[in-house]
Amino acid sequence: MDDVVDLIVSAQQPDGYLNTYYTVAEPGQRWTNLRDMHELYCAGHLMEAAVAYHQATGKRKLLDCLCRYADHIDAQFGPGPNQTPGYCGHPEIELALVSLYRATDELRYLDLARYFVAQRGKSPNYFAVEAGQRRDATEHWGGPEYYQADKPLSQQISIEGHAVRALYLLSGAIDVAAETGDPRLLATCKRLFDNCVNRRMYITGAVGSGRHGERFTYDYDLPNETAYAETCANIALALTAHRMLQVELNGRYGDVMERAIYNGVTSGVSLKGDRFFYANPLTAAHEALTTTTGTISAKRQQWFDCACCPPNIARLLAKVNQLIFSKSANGLIVNLYSSSKVRTQIGGVNVAAEMKTFYPWDGIIEINLVPAQTAGFSLALRIPGWCAKWSLKVNGKIVKLKSADGYVFIDRDWRKGDVVRLELDMPVRITETNLRSRNNAGKVAMERGPIVYCAEEVDNDPDLSSYIVPPITKWSTKLEPRLLGGVVSITGKVLKEDPAGWNDQLYRSAGQSKLKTAQLKLIPYCTWSNRKVKRMQVWLRRA
Amino acid sequence: MDDVVDLIVSAQQPDGYLNTYYTVAEPGQRWTNLRDMHELYCAGHLMEAAVAYHQATGKRKLLDCLCRYADHIDAQFGPGPNQTPGYCGHPEIELALVSLYRATDELRYLDLARYFVAQRGKSPNYFAVEAGQRRDATEHWGGPEYYQADKPLSQQISIEGHAVRALYLLSGAIDVAAETGDPRLLATCKRLFDNCVNRRMYITGAVGSGRHGERFTYDYDLPNETAYAETCANIALALTAHRMLQVELNGRYGDVMERAIYNGVTSGVSLKGDRFFYANPLTAAHEALTTTTGTISAKRQQWFDCACCPPNIARLLAKVNQLIFSKSANGLIVNLYSSSKVRTQIGGVNVAAEMKTFYPWDGIIEINLVPAQTAGFSLALRIPGWCAKWSLKVNGKIVKLKSADGYVFIDRDWRKGDVVRLELDMPVRITETNLRSRNNAGKVAMERGPIVYCAEEVDNDPDLSSYIVPPITKWSTKLEPRLLGGVVSITGKVLKEDPAGWNDQLYRSAGQSKLKTAQLKLIPYCTWSNRKVKRMQVWLRRA
Repeated sequence: MDDVVDLIVSAQQPDGYLNTYYTVAEPGQRWTNLRDMHELYCAGHLMEAAVAYHQATGKRKLLDCLCRYADHIDAQFGPGPNQTPGYCGHPEIELALVSLYRATDELRYLDLARYFVAQRGKSPNYFAVEAGQRRDATEHWGGPEYYQADKPLSQQISIEGHAVRALYLLSGAIDVAAETGDPRLLATCKRLFDNCVNRRMYITGAVGSGRHGERFTYDYDLPNETAYAETCANIALALTAHRMLQVELNGRYGDVMERAIYNGVTSGVSLKGDRFFYANPLTAAHEALTTTTGTISAKRQQWFDCACCPPNIARLLAKVNQLIFSKSANGLIVNLYSSSKVRTQIGGVNVAAEMKTFYPWDGIIEINLVPAQTAGFSLALRIPGWCAKWSLKVNGKIVKLKSADGYVFIDRDWRKGDVVRLELDMPVRITETNLRSRNNAGKVAMERGPIVYCAEEVDNDPDLSSYIVPPITKWSTKLEPRLLGGVVSITGKVLKEDPAGWNDQLYRSAGQSKLKTAQLKLIPYCTWSNRKVKRMQVWLRRA
Repeated sequence: MDDVVDLIVSAQQPDGYLNTYYTVAEPGQRWTNLRDMHELYCAGHLMEAAVAYHQATGKRKLLDCLCRYADHIDAQFGPGPNQTPGYCGHPEIELALVSLYRATDELRYLDLARYFVAQRGKSPNYFAVEAGQRRDATEHWGGPEYYQADKPLSQQISIEGHAVRALYLLSGAIDVAAETGDPRLLATCKRLFDNCVNRRMYITGAVGSGRHGERFTYDYDLPNETAYAETCANIALALTAHRMLQVELNGRYGDVMERAIYNGVTSGVSLKGDRFFYANPLTAAHEALTTTTGTISAKRQQWFDCACCPPNIARLLAKVNQLIFSKSANGLIVNLYSSSKVRTQIGGVNVAAEMKTFYPWDGIIEINLVPAQTAGFSLALRIPGWCAKWSLKVNGKIVKLKSADGYVFIDRDWRKGDVVRLELDMPVRITETNLRSRNNAGKVAMERGPIVYCAEEVDNDPDLSSYIVPPITKWSTKLEPRLLGGVVSITGKVLKEDPAGWNDQLYRSAGQSKLKTAQLKLIPYCTWSNRKVKRMQVWLRRA
């Protein structure tokens, strides 16, 4: 890594500029096509890398290099007479500058992030001005909404355009709001986040339903088979939710983060870790899906021409440890449940904690607290929105507490060896979609804990749409250590339309079909397409 | 038209060749890219035009011109040592050559059509050989199946590839089989036709469900919202069915022809005749359909970059008169019901017939026969497959006859003024799709006579997928002269999910929704999107 850092730093220009495309391939053309060329976007990702590398190793070489680049960008962009009043066609620099600000305390970086967020979408449209200067008449077919540049963020009612762009911009805006405390910007961010998760999010925590433009389309438009739901967009949603959670401790943000991570994000990678989905459909009808829908495939691929998703999954998985715990002014917060250890300081006292759990396969979580000395602080535990019944014990004794906004707070003097035990009831749930969504009308999906389930052809009859789930179904769950790397499967007795009598007709008078009972087996959605690539369905017909 | 003919003929080369692209833009490159350049395809359409113009006017100038071109093509293509063993990337020349043979009795044209059909898909693949000669490494992403050139027609089990190409090829093959009596070729044609209509045809008689490649995809793949179902493919199916009907008098071919014409073909043009659909989806969810699915639109367009569909509709509508009646060895056949007149000769006797009907809005058909003298012949009337109950009168007296293969035959001595009255019972029918089609599982469509109905948002609640059709619904029909140019609408009392209680949730525990009764209004599918462009649905949930 140090060799790579040396190589990167050696490419930096004397004025701080650092992008080899414009120093080698198109010298003299810097900052002339912010709309298409990802110049500031690339700078942003390098900044994130520099901060991460500094955090992990303490080494400053890459961080200092990116500070010089950030200084250069700060001089180039802004409202001044010799400055460029532009912003990037693909947001990312905004959140990266806040990250760099947090690592360096350099206020100019935060100010520049704020400028980029505020300047975006103002009239005259910068991308149009810039295109005019290039004498370039081509426009993106997606229009300025594609880049979230049709109007200022403050005027946006719904989350629009390319999904990854939209959520990276929202992430940057939340970061700016978190650091500046700007209440109007925060209100804008909440509005767009709410629109995203209350009207445009798949049950898998996936977003950006439209293949054409990899984009948000319109409220309640959640097609299952042609779901684009790009892995990168789902990762972006998880990280956006995590950012909201830092601004406002409310379990619903944790719920979204958890939903995305356990479903629409992890579906993006094979169990072996060597194959990837770009798009994450919720139904696969045929191996030939690729042929019929273009870029949506029922089979994970080794790599992609535009291979953003595989490294993004690597980044997210390497970052999960930062999402589990967080700190409040007076204590420790547990947002996600996973066997893990943490060491931190609370009120000047070193505190270690170890969490042991088999979550998400069961709902029992034990946390052993080891403060260096007895210390009074609040331990906050997230009570997931899906959990209707839970109990809490401290050192074996039941503690009766109510949750508030999705968290339960245990305030006490903690001693070395204190044990907190949280039991989350985890029955199979049958879930339906708002009936404004035509896509899931008359259908249900099964969930257990944070996991969304699906039926795969491998375990069932190929005609998955002939199964019908009655309102009251007795489900059995089973931990199967040798199935799909070890998962809890669900089986239940449901109804099924009998194919007898159809012969080779395609249409007939309705009302002739007979129902019989049948066994249906479900597996976690995130593990689909790891055996034979065949049909899969999350949403099943209900009786 | 004569001026246009003069212009076309003046462009013909001394050797008979006639394609201005290759005489003006790329001289010397004739017949070097049969795969992509539509050279033989254009020749075929010109031949069809020449035959039609000759039939309509008796003028031979264009016909003779195209015969010279056909002679040139016949010399160029074939198995001989100095001939090209190729065929066109887009079938059309095959059926056109048979048409030219029928107009001229020149057997070489039939032989050449037979050669093109038989040569297609043989190994080595001609398109690969040809591409090698051009030093062109590009391949169509659809593969050789896209052009029906992956294997010979005789080895094809299912209808594959670009839908218009597939059906033009099938049409040409049926024509060749009809003229040569080749039983194996005819069996091949029947097999592919059956696969097409029994497994790959929308209820609207539309085909080619895949947007990606405008193509046939796989059995029972009939997505409604992303249905491509190109107007040209639906026209091709109507004409293919008509060709089958000429080879074998079986009502099921007439049923397919009628289904396509009254639904998936006519949906392609607005009531005013000035706007067109390229794709004919069976569900429209939003005005923004164009944005979200690319080329599929809920709004008819004035024209297209590749404007095949508008003139194809004009051609089909101008040709309907040729589809209504046909002749058998011993009589007159009525395939479609429409007010019309015909004059023909049967057994040497001039026979005129006039059909009066308000079909498809009611099922009463009266045919007045006017033979020049009393004549014994068979009058065959198609009993549509959708019709479960019908009655027949001749001169007011009930005639009890059974239908065979979808036709009833009245053999008698016909006198001037004889009146045949056929009454087809035309109730509203509730139709379901083979459960192997996941797309319509748990759904029904309403039909009446040959007309497929749909619900439009304009007449109903916007959430069309919240309506549920009970097994027994009392439907009312009403002729509305001022609605959509005069149609019979259908209304019925059905169930509807109550949106109350949903608020701004996207997902919730199933089983909370309540049903109430609601009025549902349906209009003919072919007239949709002629008022406000809003949501539409053919397939509705069933209870």
